[in-house]
Amino acid sequence: MSQSLIYLDANATTPVYSEIAKEVMHCMEVEFGNPSSSHITGLKAKRLMEDTRQLGKQLIGAEKGRLLFTSGATEGIQTSVVSALIAARTHTIEKPVLLYGATEHKAVPNTLKHWNELLEINAEILAIPVDSKGILDHDFIAKHIKNALLICTMMVNNETGAAQDITALDKVIRDHNPNVFWMVDCVQGLGKQALNLDKTSINYAPFSGHKLYAPKGIGFLYLSENAPLTPFIAGGGQESGARSGTENLPGIAGLKKLFELMLESTDSVFKSVNELNGYREQLASALSYTFDEIVFNNDFSVSVPTTINFSVANIAGSEVMNLFDAAGIRVSAGSACSSGAASSFVLDAMNLPAWQSGNAIRLSFGPMATTQEINDACQRIRALKDKLANACMVFGQTKDIPCAVGVNQFVLNNEIMYLVVNNSLDALLINAKASELNKIQRLFKNQGLTVTGLINVDSDITAAFSDATTFDLNSDQLLTEFNLEINQNTLYKLNNQQRFAMPLVTSNNAKINELDSQSLKVALSSQSIDGIVDIREKYEHQEGELSDYLKVPSDLVSNIPSHRLLNEVFEGRLTKEQNYILVCRSGRRSKACCELLNEFGYSNVSNLAGGVAFI
Amino acid sequence: MSQSLIYLDANATTPVYSEIAKEVMHCMEVEFGNPSSSHITGLKAKRLMEDTRQLGKQLIGAEKGRLLFTSGATEGIQTSVVSALIAARTHTIEKPVLLYGATEHKAVPNTLKHWNELLEINAEILAIPVDSKGILDHDFIAKHIKNALLICTMMVNNETGAAQDITALDKVIRDHNPNVFWMVDCVQGLGKQALNLDKTSINYAPFSGHKLYAPKGIGFLYLSENAPLTPFIAGGGQESGARSGTENLPGIAGLKKLFELMLESTDSVFKSVNELNGYREQLASALSYTFDEIVFNNDFSVSVPTTINFSVANIAGSEVMNLFDAAGIRVSAGSACSSGAASSFVLDAMNLPAWQSGNAIRLSFGPMATTQEINDACQRIRALKDKLANACMVFGQTKDIPCAVGVNQFVLNNEIMYLVVNNSLDALLINAKASELNKIQRLFKNQGLTVTGLINVDSDITAAFSDATTFDLNSDQLLTEFNLEINQNTLYKLNNQQRFAMPLVTSNNAKINELDSQSLKVALSSQSIDGIVDIREKYEHQEGELSDYLKVPSDLVSNIPSHRLLNEVFEGRLTKEQNYILVCRSGRRSKACCELLNEFGYSNVSNLAGGVAFI
Repeated sequence: MSQSLIYLDANATTPVYSEIAKEVMHCMEVEFGNPSSSHITGLKAKRLMEDTRQLGKQLIGAEKGRLLFTSGATEGIQTSVVSALIAARTHTIEKPVLLYGATEHKAVPNTLKHWNELLEINAEILAIPVDSKGILDHDFIAKHIKNALLICTMMVNNETGAAQDITALDKVIRDHNPNVFWMVDCVQGLGKQALNLDKTSINYAPFSGHKLYAPKGIGFLYLSENAPLTPFIAGGGQESGARSGTENLPGIAGLKKLFELMLESTDSVFKSVNELNGYREQLASALSYTFDEIVFNNDFSVSVPTTINFSVANIAGSEVMNLFDAAGIRVSAGSACSSGAASSFVLDAMNLPAWQSGNAIRLSFGPMATTQEINDACQRIRALKDKLANACMVFGQTKDIPCAVGVNQFVLNNEIMYLVVNNSLDALLINAKASELNKIQRLFKNQGLTVTGLINVDSDITAAFSDATTFDLNSDQLLTEFNLEINQNTLYKLNNQQRFAMPLVTSNNAKINELDSQSLKVALSSQSIDGIVDIREKYEHQEGELSDYLKVPSDLVSNIPSHRLLNEVFEGRLTKEQNYILVCRSGRRSKACCELLNEFGYSNVSNLAGGVAFI
Repeated sequence: MSQSLIYLDANATTPVYSEIAKEVMHCMEVEFGNPSSSHITGLKAKRLMEDTRQLGKQLIGAEKGRLLFTSGATEGIQTSVVSALIAARTHTIEKPVLLYGATEHKAVPNTLKHWNELLEINAEILAIPVDSKGILDHDFIAKHIKNALLICTMMVNNETGAAQDITALDKVIRDHNPNVFWMVDCVQGLGKQALNLDKTSINYAPFSGHKLYAPKGIGFLYLSENAPLTPFIAGGGQESGARSGTENLPGIAGLKKLFELMLESTDSVFKSVNELNGYREQLASALSYTFDEIVFNNDFSVSVPTTINFSVANIAGSEVMNLFDAAGIRVSAGSACSSGAASSFVLDAMNLPAWQSGNAIRLSFGPMATTQEINDACQRIRALKDKLANACMVFGQTKDIPCAVGVNQFVLNNEIMYLVVNNSLDALLINAKASELNKIQRLFKNQGLTVTGLINVDSDITAAFSDATTFDLNSDQLLTEFNLEINQNTLYKLNNQQRFAMPLVTSNNAKINELDSQSLKVALSSQSIDGIVDIREKYEHQEGELSDYLKVPSDLVSNIPSHRLLNEVFEGRLTKEQNYILVCRSGRRSKACCELLNEFGYSNVSNLAGGVAFI
């Protein structure tokens, strides 16, 4: 009995709405002309394109400016940045800067850096700080904008939904520099708040189709009347020379339908801001019911209603993801584009505690969300409460032992901590405050566990070990006690660990054997492999398992999430001499795990380069 | 009884094949994940992408190189050119050059020019000449390649189908410069001949989806193992940092299906080269049957079978287009991307006579063409022969008058000529050789027409008029006789006229009143307009007429193709004082016609800026 999927990750991408998909299809199969052709088929294509452009301009309140079709927002960002930098090449500012909001989608600072270098502009690139709500520091802008060639801000943040006050920004920018170029990334703004670009002094505004029920591969760029334009894609001279390359007509047909739906006054497909606010309240209330120690990372008062960003104080983010996955709800850990990152740079910039940033979950819906969908989601979220009560990974709530033998990750008093447990159920606590050891020892004692030492790796390794010695163990004893054949550098790396509980990353630069898909096939057919270790988290598993892809017996594959890997080591369930191949999604975590196993004497482990996708 | 459309313009674009469209649809509505998301929906997307990449590499014989997904070939060209130029920035060549084939798609030289300038490389950009078959001059390459930073050639030409010998090119390039970067535009090669890129020293090879039954907006770029890569689209780090922006998954799903179909050994969807050769023979034979004076502009012995490029010596290209259009066959005048150009730069580069280049028609089919389709096309082409026999625009074949009053364009002895005929049926011949006047006079005499003078505008205007005076008329008399209130410069412009019979372009810089769609609406509602003149060629008319778009009575709109415009002037069917609005496809030809009418004393004409598309 498989349950249906509830998709709450609209800020990453959306499915294409059926009516929009129908238009795309028609344009692929029937009205497939090249707008540059002079016969009827081509003329119809040209007309469709111009109709869409007019609708788009109407929708964003830009009768006066230009609207170009692009392959997506990232291309729009390139066009804006290159155009502004080329136009600003002749500047006379002594120390020119390029400004961007600290919480911008990383496409923006990366693009600034890239073209600043390639075009040899050599401006300093400065991040504009934000407050704890994610709102830009206007004083900082006032101070630096006179030396700026370009300022990039975003309308609505993709991780938190925080919306900037464009009118106020406009004023602070223009009061201090009437001529600086201003780009506003509007990707997450469209459909979530009214736009009236003619009323602003924004020069460039990139948009994307796939974040709002249109296909991937199409976007558009608004340029104000006075915005300089250097074509980013040169060539056949399409789009009046502004953007070459045969136009993506199916994508444009999709946008046309989208624009029409949004412009319909009697529309019931797109929900009003009021309705969306109601949905957010419902979801927030369900989340608060289920997770006692939930903290919302975004301030609803300054955010669009479609994004909720939260962390749970007593459960690791990866475990919350597993819960949602099991419940058939798709949410995101941080932003999709940053998956795999240790923490959210957006929440870090908002100066939120590291545990919140490291464990953040984003839940986002689109303006086409339905009451039914939200009701179902809330029901499933509330149903998680019972599951949680029995889950052993929740610290302090379990009846038996709170942690397994090996390395355990948990959150206590808003800090991420690790508890290394040996076979005698002695435990070493890492990353806790020394002052709390007594309290922690008492807590664990109740669970039949003796915490014999503590390492605080927030300070440097020497300090950490000398801290520890004050608690009856010196560093040598620590290592002996826990039979950890690891060096000081290894422990120190703990603080830089990856998001998903790669608890002990080694600094040992042993060369790991890397397999590509070809050599994997060879190895499998020669039967020289003793086991494949799939180190992905539970929620990362596709419905089909690794054994299905590889067409190998399922007992050849062990599912051991990376954060449980050392448990297997300590409990001796992995044999040192055997040939294991480690696999994760991208090949990155599995490589780190290979290095770790190598450190523990597993010298025959190999990594699958590129991960699951490359099989 | 409307007939079905036969589409023979595959080199411009193709419809998306139904099985491919189905996959695109599935990826839009069901498997719509963002490959960067870590949940299942995202993982499936990532997997689809990597599967497609592997199939693509297999298809083009590129196990060793890289394959990146792009928004199309033009983006692929940008990536190649920018990567090569950035890598070559540190060159030590005294006078560096960038080489490209003279018949390359203009996207290539335009891109070279663009980035050579923006990146301040300052290399000289040199076109490699071609012979009359369109084959590159290898001696020229041998001579210049040692100073080249980059050489760009194309696998198969889009206008002629001419295929370069890649092995021979490889040898001449590498014999003289082992390190120069080499880009080969493969857009028209895929599916029409076998590719084995690993066996070549090609560094960059851009491909497009929409030229081969996949959607617009998706393409891919091959890079050899040693090819330097500077990401062209920076940002979120997708495609391992090589190409940012959320991947166009629906497009990629389309490519996957395409690749699978092409790799199937038992495939019957894609025709073999033998079958395609048969189709070409059939079509060429039908064309030769119908058009007595046909010349094939491409040499079949060096061309892929899917392209036929021809001109008809006794009929203007625009009239041939009208014939095909009426027969329900879509073909192209020159390349789609150059529509509106006076002649084909590709055929010019091949040094074909101007009349061939100016009147060229391209007929192209894809490798999915069916026997039924080709049979139908041939039948319709053969049926045109009867129509031709009675058509008045064919010189020498008509029973009544060969030309209308006004300006007539025709081809005689392989030259384009104009015959200006006044109400007394006296005619002025323009652009003919003086030595032929007697012969021409005799020919026209049989048609009841007295040719009283001749102007050869191949030489400069003074010479032309002094030529003319030797035939009983001096320039003043010429003008008086024909009541042409035009100056010498105007006549001189004849030689630079636009392709579709804008016979007399004035040099008068009178300011033409330009209307945008808004002021057009105002003008229409205020009833201040006496008539709308639709100057598009017959074949450019959409099934819905201008009066339908504008929602005006159909008698307000006159359809007068631009090359017949002066007839109306000479016959007094247009009134000088009235307010006419001229409309064409892009607003460009109609503007030239406005200027022309202005010259003739029509002072109240306005142009619709942007043309039909902007209504």
